[in-house]
Amino acid sequence: MLLRKINNQYLRICKSPQLRPFHSARVMNAPSSVNDLTKEPVRKEFVDMLSDFDQLMDKMIPVIREYYLDCGRPKTVKMNEFALPDQILKEIGEIKESGQSIDQCVDTLKTSLKYSLKTMHPFFMDKLYAGSEPIGQVAELVTAILNTHVHVYHVAPVFSVMEVECVKIFGKEFGFKEEHIDGTLNPGGSMSNMMALLAARQEHFPHVRNEGWKAEDKPVAFTSVQSHYSVARGAMVAGMGINNLVNVPCDRMTGVMIPEKLEEALKAEIEKGNKPFFVNTLAGSTVMGGFDDQNAISAICKKYGVWHHIDACWGGYLVFSNKLKTTLFAGAEKADSISINPHKGLSVPTQCSLLLTNNKKDALRKSNHSGAEYLFHETEYSKYDIGDKTLSCGRRGDGLKLWMCMQRNGLEGFRAKADDAMEKSVYITNQIKKQPEKFTMVNEPQATNICFWYIPKAFRNGAEYTDSQ
Amino acid sequence: MLLRKINNQYLRICKSPQLRPFHSARVMNAPSSVNDLTKEPVRKEFVDMLSDFDQLMDKMIPVIREYYLDCGRPKTVKMNEFALPDQILKEIGEIKESGQSIDQCVDTLKTSLKYSLKTMHPFFMDKLYAGSEPIGQVAELVTAILNTHVHVYHVAPVFSVMEVECVKIFGKEFGFKEEHIDGTLNPGGSMSNMMALLAARQEHFPHVRNEGWKAEDKPVAFTSVQSHYSVARGAMVAGMGINNLVNVPCDRMTGVMIPEKLEEALKAEIEKGNKPFFVNTLAGSTVMGGFDDQNAISAICKKYGVWHHIDACWGGYLVFSNKLKTTLFAGAEKADSISINPHKGLSVPTQCSLLLTNNKKDALRKSNHSGAEYLFHETEYSKYDIGDKTLSCGRRGDGLKLWMCMQRNGLEGFRAKADDAMEKSVYITNQIKKQPEKFTMVNEPQATNICFWYIPKAFRNGAEYTDSQ
Repeated sequence: MLLRKINNQYLRICKSPQLRPFHSARVMNAPSSVNDLTKEPVRKEFVDMLSDFDQLMDKMIPVIREYYLDCGRPKTVKMNEFALPDQILKEIGEIKESGQSIDQCVDTLKTSLKYSLKTMHPFFMDKLYAGSEPIGQVAELVTAILNTHVHVYHVAPVFSVMEVECVKIFGKEFGFKEEHIDGTLNPGGSMSNMMALLAARQEHFPHVRNEGWKAEDKPVAFTSVQSHYSVARGAMVAGMGINNLVNVPCDRMTGVMIPEKLEEALKAEIEKGNKPFFVNTLAGSTVMGGFDDQNAISAICKKYGVWHHIDACWGGYLVFSNKLKTTLFAGAEKADSISINPHKGLSVPTQCSLLLTNNKKDALRKSNHSGAEYLFHETEYSKYDIGDKTLSCGRRGDGLKLWMCMQRNGLEGFRAKADDAMEKSVYITNQIKKQPEKFTMVNEPQATNICFWYIPKAFRNGAEYTDSQ
Repeated sequence: MLLRKINNQYLRICKSPQLRPFHSARVMNAPSSVNDLTKEPVRKEFVDMLSDFDQLMDKMIPVIREYYLDCGRPKTVKMNEFALPDQILKEIGEIKESGQSIDQCVDTLKTSLKYSLKTMHPFFMDKLYAGSEPIGQVAELVTAILNTHVHVYHVAPVFSVMEVECVKIFGKEFGFKEEHIDGTLNPGGSMSNMMALLAARQEHFPHVRNEGWKAEDKPVAFTSVQSHYSVARGAMVAGMGINNLVNVPCDRMTGVMIPEKLEEALKAEIEKGNKPFFVNTLAGSTVMGGFDDQNAISAICKKYGVWHHIDACWGGYLVFSNKLKTTLFAGAEKADSISINPHKGLSVPTQCSLLLTNNKKDALRKSNHSGAEYLFHETEYSKYDIGDKTLSCGRRGDGLKLWMCMQRNGLEGFRAKADDAMEKSVYITNQIKKQPEKFTMVNEPQATNICFWYIPKAFRNGAEYTDSQ
């Protein structure tokens, strides 16, 4: 009897059923199937929770359906209803001492839909991501219902298996050999890039883990001048300092790293007595969408013995295009690590970011392991204990939505997304070029970032203008 | 006409409608209300997406309802159906070149529910979290549908406002003055603790950001010997080295830091010429559930001028208990920062972690800002541009589910969760004590971690035994 009582009580700890006075009608009228006499009766707390779930779904599904339809009428429905913080605060009200009804909660969810940006609206072009797909959205609901962490296999077997498989699939797309692939899903591209820098630090300066940086270390890392700010933030976090991150010049017209400049910079730092250990290159720079020459850079990195990372957070999804794989990503298979965000370009709900390593056996575990004995044990499936390879302890199950989006679309669906994006980039570029009186291209796009100037009327008809005007 | 075409095409870039051959029946029979003749017709891509959403919901809601009911019959329904990786791989199948139908995707989602641990099952006691609540789960669905990042206000007005408000509410619960509170939501407690250490580093060694650690810095941080491994990981990441994190001894019986030992350790390090800058204390240690004496430690930290952080990731939710607030958390209001995970103890879906700072104006921004001009601009609402205060660029909208769980439960709901947990802890402790022949307590629990030994039959009846057996 003790065990039963304990468990009854434990349940109440988690669910506080006495705090749910709002839906007594539903609870009283629980459908008879809920408590089939031939089965163990469903505990009241779960009947109550199900009533909440049912009411929320009953009320929210029509709202969500209307939201989809609104997004599908972009000429008459605005992308956003912009409001200042005071207005939003007024409409969402305050958190009160007493709990509020499902209807009041639904009102807040409606307000959230109303004032948030419709990222799935066709006119949303603000940042490097867009709307997500229904399969990913429903996978997120299931993830929230399962509500488990992905640190060790035995609490998250399915999420762990899916994560490991997704890592393999993405690694292979970049041309890595299956037996050389490792990687993890991380909370965002900034974290993936930072973890790559830390893995390189561990390889070149293994004493830093325990002893910290020493004066004689003189670490220096290199990145494209066009790179995302997370690389500098990584250098800052890692305690090597942003000044010890050398910005390698890029071609003025393409925004692509000049390999000769990288080699010059490497030589100059070595002459100063500094120790290069990490080069960050780009596969889709944030602004110009440039793809660095990975073959040339790989050769230089191998010559000087430094870790070659590709930040493909933004442009990496284009690897699914068979045509672009062999052009934009030529040489990527030689890199030591690649970060890629399926939440960009592939419509997987945010957050979804991968760091892949190539031929760096256990580098992530060496870099990040904690030795937390209460969590990690040697078992036949301990390679699925992913948490020890990351900076997190508890981790979201981002693998499920990625797996589900891949299953629904198939690899050919992802390929078509990449090919479509490129086709449309060419189309839009051509449209811009057809109207030289109104627009002028900054450069010939390598991929899907199209940089152009709108020419104000005052500067047309032969009037001179420069970039600075 | 150009604009329209561009937008049509842009839409297709994102949604690849030609990849959706599976549900033609639904598309053909789109309900007439979808395309009301008086309104702009809904674009086909959105009709298709809605069809996916409808089918997924139609099929998944009964599955989810059954899952709730299963969890509510814990004596006959197992907490988990354990399977090894090969079995799971076999059942989820492979990602194929071609996309799979909604039914096939639903099968995979069912498999996920089948083999994942039922964390909402009353018998789940494996780790420091449990199931989530329907309101939080549905908020996650809405978050995935909105699919926006929370870096700047103008792409996520509602999420940003909710995050700022939640920070205030939690800060006030710990006794911070409203005008002194700052903070952010982060991807997990490890990240929150690491960010606290980095903020302290920025305050004491501001040159590290740009120049890296110098030989003369000799930083040293202090943590309870009972602390979570994320603190050591933080010291590792920050490039100061795990060896420069001093583990302060705890009381053998309570697992609580001995303030005198902290002061001794501080003095010893200062005598060695090292520079203390950060003390990590605990409000709910992972194993013993110990709450450090924050008043005593605060006085020491102020005396030596070091940052006082409280890792309340686990036990922080108990602050909502008015009774425990004044006992377990006495002095917490004097800390410089506190981390707390509402995804533990408060049933908010994972991930949900807060780092709160107190009277450290703009410390998080100073520590983490990027100067990314393409993102962050001075506006009347730029204090809501949260991304610049964090290590992330794109960020999940974790604020919505936290807000919704608070709205549904009310503060009194959170208070009842805390009080209930404590009541049940006392109850279980008493039950254990009533059976001294079978169990022996390790110590008197301070809060909800109950540490006891089961006495094997061989050691009963006066046979001698020790901890090591």
